Amino acid sequence: MTVRGIAPPSATVLHEPMTTLMSLTETQDFLDREFPQMQAGGRAYHLEAVGPLTARMRLEAHERFLRPGATVSGPAMMALADYVLYAAILANIGPVALAVTTNLAFNFLRKPASGDLLAECRLLKLGRRLAVGEVAITAVGNPDIVCHATGTYSIPPR
Amino acid sequence: MTVRGIAPPSATVLHEPMTTLMSLTETQDFLDREFPQMQAGGRAYHLEAVGPLTARMRLEAHERFLRPGATVSGPAMMALADYVLYAAILANIGPVALAVTTNLAFNFLRKPASGDLLAECRLLKLGRRLAVGEVAITAVGNPDIVCHATGTYSIPPR
Amino acid sequence: MTVRGIAPPSATVLHEPMTTLMSLTETQDFLDREFPQMQAGGRAYHLEAVGPLTARMRLEAHERFLRPGATVSGPAMMALADYVLYAAILANIGPVALAVTTNLAFNFLRKPASGDLLAECRLLKLGRRLAVGEVAITAVGNPDIVCHATGTYSIPPR
Amino acid sequence: MTVRGIAPPSATVLHEPMTTLMSLTETQDFLDREFPQMQAGGRAYHLEAVGPLTARMRLEAHERFLRPGATVSGPAMMALADYVLYAAILANIGPVALAVTTNLAFNFLRKPASGDLLAECRLLKLGRRLAVGEVAITAVGNPDIVCHATGTYSIPPR
Repeated sequence: MTVRGIAPPSATVLHEPMTTLMSLTETQDFLDREFPQMQAGGRAYHLEAVGPLTARMRLEAHERFLRPGATVSGPAMMALADYVLYAAILANIGPVALAVTTNLAFNFLRKPASGDLLAECRLLKLGRRLAVGEVAITAVGNPDIVCHATGTYSIPPR
Repeated sequence: MTVRGIAPPSATVLHEPMTTLMSLTETQDFLDREFPQMQAGGRAYHLEAVGPLTARMRLEAHERFLRPGATVSGPAMMALADYVLYAAILANIGPVALAVTTNLAFNFLRKPASGDLLAECRLLKLGRRLAVGEVAITAVGNPDIVCHATGTYSIPPR
Repeated sequence: MTVRGIAPPSATVLHEPMTTLMSLTETQDFLDREFPQMQAGGRAYHLEAVGPLTARMRLEAHERFLRPGATVSGPAMMALADYVLYAAILANIGPVALAVTTNLAFNFLRKPASGDLLAECRLLKLGRRLAVGEVAITAVGNPDIVCHATGTYSIPPR
Repeated sequence: MTVRGIAPPSATVLHEPMTTLMSLTETQDFLDREFPQMQAGGRAYHLEAVGPLTARMRLEAHERFLRPGATVSGPAMMALADYVLYAAILANIGPVALAVTTNLAFNFLRKPASGDLLAECRLLKLGRRLAVGEVAITAVGNPDIVCHATGTYSIPPR
C-alpha cells in the first residue's frame, strides 16, 4: 500500500508567482558553471523543469550510482534531493551562489530499481533568510515514492 | 510566496485500498480509550476524517496551547502531528495499541494565528514493520502550511 | 546495548566562552515571564543548569505527561527538548524573546519509566543567524538515552 | 563559539559490550566486498576504527568531492555519515548485508576546508529491529563539527 507520486503543486498553490526569475536553461547553466563536479564521470543530473516554487530533476542511471542488487545508492538519491532543492530555490530567487544547505532529512521508503530516477521538489517556504522544501523521488515509470526528503537552505542577505 | 494546503492524496494514489480497516468512529473511540490523557484539560483533538492512507485532525484553540502573541505553541503542533499520524496508521491497519513512534521531524514554517489548526496526514509507506507519513498543519481558513512533519512508527509483529 | 548519558561537553570543548550571558536564575525568570503557559497545570519544567553552550532541564513527573504503561508521553519529551534548547540559547546570547524554532528532529529510542526526566542540551553551533543544538533525554537514575533530539533556532537580527 | 569534537563514548558508556563481533579488518573487508562502488574513482573511504557501539572513518580529500571554494561537498559528507553508521552496526552485530537505511537527518554547521574529513559514529540504540546512531564529522586537525547526522538502519530478522 503506497502513495504514488508527489502532490501536483498546481492543485494546492493559490497565490504563487506566475513565473520564475530564471528559466530552465538559465538555471541549468548556472548550476553547470557553479557545480561542474556534480557531473564528474559523465553528465547524469538533468534539470527537466522549473516552475513557481517547483523543480524537477532526473538522475540518469549510471553504474557509479548503483549498489548491490542493481539499486540506486542512498548517497546518489541524497545528492539528487539536495541538488533539485537548490535548483528550485535558484530558479525562484535568481542566481545566489552562496545559498547553503543547513538541514536535510531523508526517509528511505523502498528500494528503487536500477533505471532513471525523478526528483520532484516543491518549496514549502521561500522566506528572506530561509527556504524550505520537500522532495519526492520516484523511479521512472513507477509512481511509488522511493525516497522522501525535506531540506532547508540559508539564503545570504541580498 | 507559499505553497498552500497539502496535496490531495486522491490525485496521486493509484492502487490504494478503497476502504480503511477502522471507521472514523472506531478510530476515535480507540484513541479515546487508549490515550485519554490527550484530552486532559478539555477535549481539543478532534479526528475529522480517515481514509485510505490518510487522516485529518483538528486542534481546537484552547488557551493552554497558546504562546506569546496568541500563536499556537510548537509542542501543541508536534503533539497534533504525532497523533494524526497514529490515527492514520490505526485506521489503516486496525487496532494496534503498541505501535510506537520512532522518529519525528518538523519544519516550522510560519507562526499560526490563534484559531483552530488542521492537520492532514498521508502515509508514504505502510509496511509490515514500519509506517512512514507526512503531515501538513494549517490554520483553519488559511491554506499556508505552518508546520510540516514527517514521522515513522514501528509496528509490532502481528 | 546502549550508550548512556550525553557527552560531558567539558571534555570536548576547547575554546568555548567561560561564562554565559545570563545566569541560571536570570534565564529561568525570563522563561517564566515569556512562557508562563509552559508551567500551566503546575510547575513541571525545572531549569537546573546553564553553562557555556549547554543547559540542563528536568521534567517533573506529573500525571498529565503520562501515557498507557505509565510512560512519559512523546509530546512531553518533545516540549522538554524544545524548551531546554531555547534555554541554552538564551543563556548564551542573552534575552532574545523572538528566537524561533525552525527545525526539530527526534529519535525515540526506548520507553522511559514514569519518573522525572533529565534533558541535557549542548549547542553544536551558535551563529549570528542560526543556533543548532542536540538534546539527550534520560530518566533520572538511568543513563540510557530515551529520546535524542536535534534542533535549530533562527535568531533575529540584533 | 563551537563545540569541538564528538563525545568520547568511553566516558559515557557503562555496560557496553567489551568487544565487537567483527574486527576492523573484517568489517572493512566486508564493506569492500559488498560495496565496491563506494571506492569507485579511487579508494577514499578509510575505516579507521571500530569499537563497542562506535566506528571512525576518514574521507580522503579527492578532487571529486570538492565544491567551489575547495570545500568538501554535502553529498560526500552524507555518504560518509551513512557509511560509517553502517560500519558501526556491522562491526557490532556481524555481517548483515541486508540492513538498510530508513532515515538520515543532517545539520550542516560550517564549511569544511578541503583536507581529509573524520567521521565518528556512536550508536545510541542497537535493538533487534532498529539501530540508531549519531555521527559527527570534523576536518582533520580542527575539532569543530562541520556536519552532524543521525540515522536509523532497519535490521532484517536473523
